Amino acid sequence: MPVNIPETSQPRVLIIGAGFAGLRLARKLYKHDFQIVLIDRNNYHQFQPLFYQVATSGLEPSSISFPLRKVFQKVKNVFIRVAEVKKINPQEKIIETSLGTAWYDYLVIASGATTNFFGVDSFEKNGIPMKSTSEALFLRNKLLENFETAVTLRDPDEIDRLLSIVVVGGGPTGVEVCGALAEMKKFVLPKDYPDLDFNLMTITLVEANEQLLHGMSREAGVKALEYLTSLGVKVKLNHKVKSYDGKEIELEDQENFQTRTLIWAAGVKGQMPDGISADNIVAGNRLKVDEFNRLEDFPEIFAIGDIAYTETKDYPKGHPQVAQVALQQAALLAKNLINIKNGNNLVPFQYRDKGSMATVGRNRAVVDLPGFKFSGFPAWLVWMFVHLMSIVGVKNRLVIFINWLWNYMTYDQSLRLIIRPKSKNT
Amino acid sequence: MPVNIPETSQPRVLIIGAGFAGLRLARKLYKHDFQIVLIDRNNYHQFQPLFYQVATSGLEPSSISFPLRKVFQKVKNVFIRVAEVKKINPQEKIIETSLGTAWYDYLVIASGATTNFFGVDSFEKNGIPMKSTSEALFLRNKLLENFETAVTLRDPDEIDRLLSIVVVGGGPTGVEVCGALAEMKKFVLPKDYPDLDFNLMTITLVEANEQLLHGMSREAGVKALEYLTSLGVKVKLNHKVKSYDGKEIELEDQENFQTRTLIWAAGVKGQMPDGISADNIVAGNRLKVDEFNRLEDFPEIFAIGDIAYTETKDYPKGHPQVAQVALQQAALLAKNLINIKNGNNLVPFQYRDKGSMATVGRNRAVVDLPGFKFSGFPAWLVWMFVHLMSIVGVKNRLVIFINWLWNYMTYDQSLRLIIRPKSKNT
Repeated sequence: MPVNIPETSQPRVLIIGAGFAGLRLARKLYKHDFQIVLIDRNNYHQFQPLFYQVATSGLEPSSISFPLRKVFQKVKNVFIRVAEVKKINPQEKIIETSLGTAWYDYLVIASGATTNFFGVDSFEKNGIPMKSTSEALFLRNKLLENFETAVTLRDPDEIDRLLSIVVVGGGPTGVEVCGALAEMKKFVLPKDYPDLDFNLMTITLVEANEQLLHGMSREAGVKALEYLTSLGVKVKLNHKVKSYDGKEIELEDQENFQTRTLIWAAGVKGQMPDGISADNIVAGNRLKVDEFNRLEDFPEIFAIGDIAYTETKDYPKGHPQVAQVALQQAALLAKNLINIKNGNNLVPFQYRDKGSMATVGRNRAVVDLPGFKFSGFPAWLVWMFVHLMSIVGVKNRLVIFINWLWNYMTYDQSLRLIIRPKSKNT
Repeated sequence: MPVNIPETSQPRVLIIGAGFAGLRLARKLYKHDFQIVLIDRNNYHQFQPLFYQVATSGLEPSSISFPLRKVFQKVKNVFIRVAEVKKINPQEKIIETSLGTAWYDYLVIASGATTNFFGVDSFEKNGIPMKSTSEALFLRNKLLENFETAVTLRDPDEIDRLLSIVVVGGGPTGVEVCGALAEMKKFVLPKDYPDLDFNLMTITLVEANEQLLHGMSREAGVKALEYLTSLGVKVKLNHKVKSYDGKEIELEDQENFQTRTLIWAAGVKGQMPDGISADNIVAGNRLKVDEFNRLEDFPEIFAIGDIAYTETKDYPKGHPQVAQVALQQAALLAKNLINIKNGNNLVPFQYRDKGSMATVGRNRAVVDLPGFKFSGFPAWLVWMFVHLMSIVGVKNRLVIFINWLWNYMTYDQSLRLIIRPKSKNT
């Protein structure tokens, strides 16, 4: 049964995913003469770079989530459908979703990336990922519940396990969550739980690589290590994790760790819908596309953002899976779809690296710009400014700014709430 | 097995519930020489009067919830335990909780009131209550999901049912939620869903009594009716509901309504822990106490707030179940516990009615003060000021104020997010 979308004379661009790539594309395209169908499993856009602040009680989920319908208020040619995409049928030019089928003239796969547990079941079962607002909220609840449980126990080993946190993966997410946890340990938790001994709390960051932030410069990695160490985080470089049973992490040829909380920030893989030929799928579950982000064999199917993979001279292993690539690919694809419609030539994608950055807590961040690296307080200010300006919605920006200012002045994140919507059979 | 609470020489006051009554008592008492154990099923205090704004996407749950541990930061003699109370054993002076047993010198039952479905299973099963942050969040998700579903359907009857909302109970909660829904219908929803016809959306308020806000003055009830009617809410006074199967509401001797959303705001009953003799329990599941809020037979057990019931000359059917009574009883009980400790006489409770109020939307509210009634814009300002000042936490106050200002200027509530923490076997 087809999804209820009006049939019009406009060519239909069906976009899967309302992340950085999908949302940007829809925004760039809706003023031109297309019918846009935007499908996402959530009714909101998520600002991924700040998930870690939701997980550590610094920001409310709503501050980094923006209702899609609000972005396209009063817009008549954008049709938002909250649904799971089940399968793509490129031959028939339709997709199957949890709401029914939908045809397309142009299909844009912007479904992004999800957590990669590298096939280890015990990590998938017991580790906590942080790739969505829901997961970040789950982690927040879990951390707070662990402290609440610890306070009621007498068994020192179990208290230890509840207070110990291990983060796997030393990319920006891993580094940033460790920094935030270390600051909670330092400034907030001992005041909240006067009857718990937070000297027992350990935060350990395990990274398989020989440096932190391996997508960034060597200097940034060294500086991040220095910051985290000064905050009391134990950083284990060149360490690989093997398994985790919910209590103990086994490392390859190394000491083991006891913990009730394993935060998994070690890798991503493309969220590939079914129905794509395996020939087009490369390492990391990414979709191989040409320099116009177009699928081989199906010139009306495109992939942009984290799921897209283009080999170029500058990026022989594909572009980095970061917001900037997604945004730039989306902007170009909007132009190219208009070019196709007008019978003009397509423009190939060329990534302009604007730099990358990560923060490790109060006054501490690292920034790599092309040809210029810096760290410390100025980097931290730049980090805040860039993130604040990238957030969708003026009110979100305002609320986040107030939260940051407040947290900065009071050394306190005040959202330490274990809240769940009541579960009920609807 | 006993809950892990240190044994000290201080007399132990065990408080069940951290609502208005329990939290106020703990705050008044902790500077005196008592050990205070505060038990709640949540790790936060909830500001009940604004649940309806969470349900209608106007405020974030965190804005009206305050972490208990933050209230008592660094306080050494307050022990917060997040637990369910299972049973009270007055003979042995212990209570049983989900964390184990706990003894007390003084027990204060401040467990409040919960939704009263008056024994009708179909309401309990299919109606949506609004007596906790979690329930309000559930309602918010449900309302938004219904609109998302409606947009995908073709069956006009089912679309009708999804867009129709029936609220049962014309007290402050019912009136306020109807006002907020009517404003969403007017200002927000048609912009969000250009492909839905919101002329089909109906909001119906069913009240068994002959006036709205029957705890308030006749004038307030008439004014609220006028406001709601002008906002397009259908108000059915003198109507009793009989059953609801999730699709259709049956009324006694009247027309039926088709709706997928029945909001139940029709009554409350005390949340009574097990173990209390039935002799002490009166209508509405309230606990009969004397003028010192003390249980008959057990002078070391007290009840305050919504669950307490005291017959006085002025209030022969007990005090109203409102925040003011809870706060005043808590403040007096703090004094009386100190009196008991010092061997002084107890002071009997005397309720000072400061008035009551309700809001029906932008610029519209009703206020009953002793000897003075008013409505309209001034009442609405007073309503906002009083509620803002009653919220725990300066930052909450600030964030709520910004939200209100923003919503007022933009005619928009921007929290239309269907967010759930990821469910995972923890």
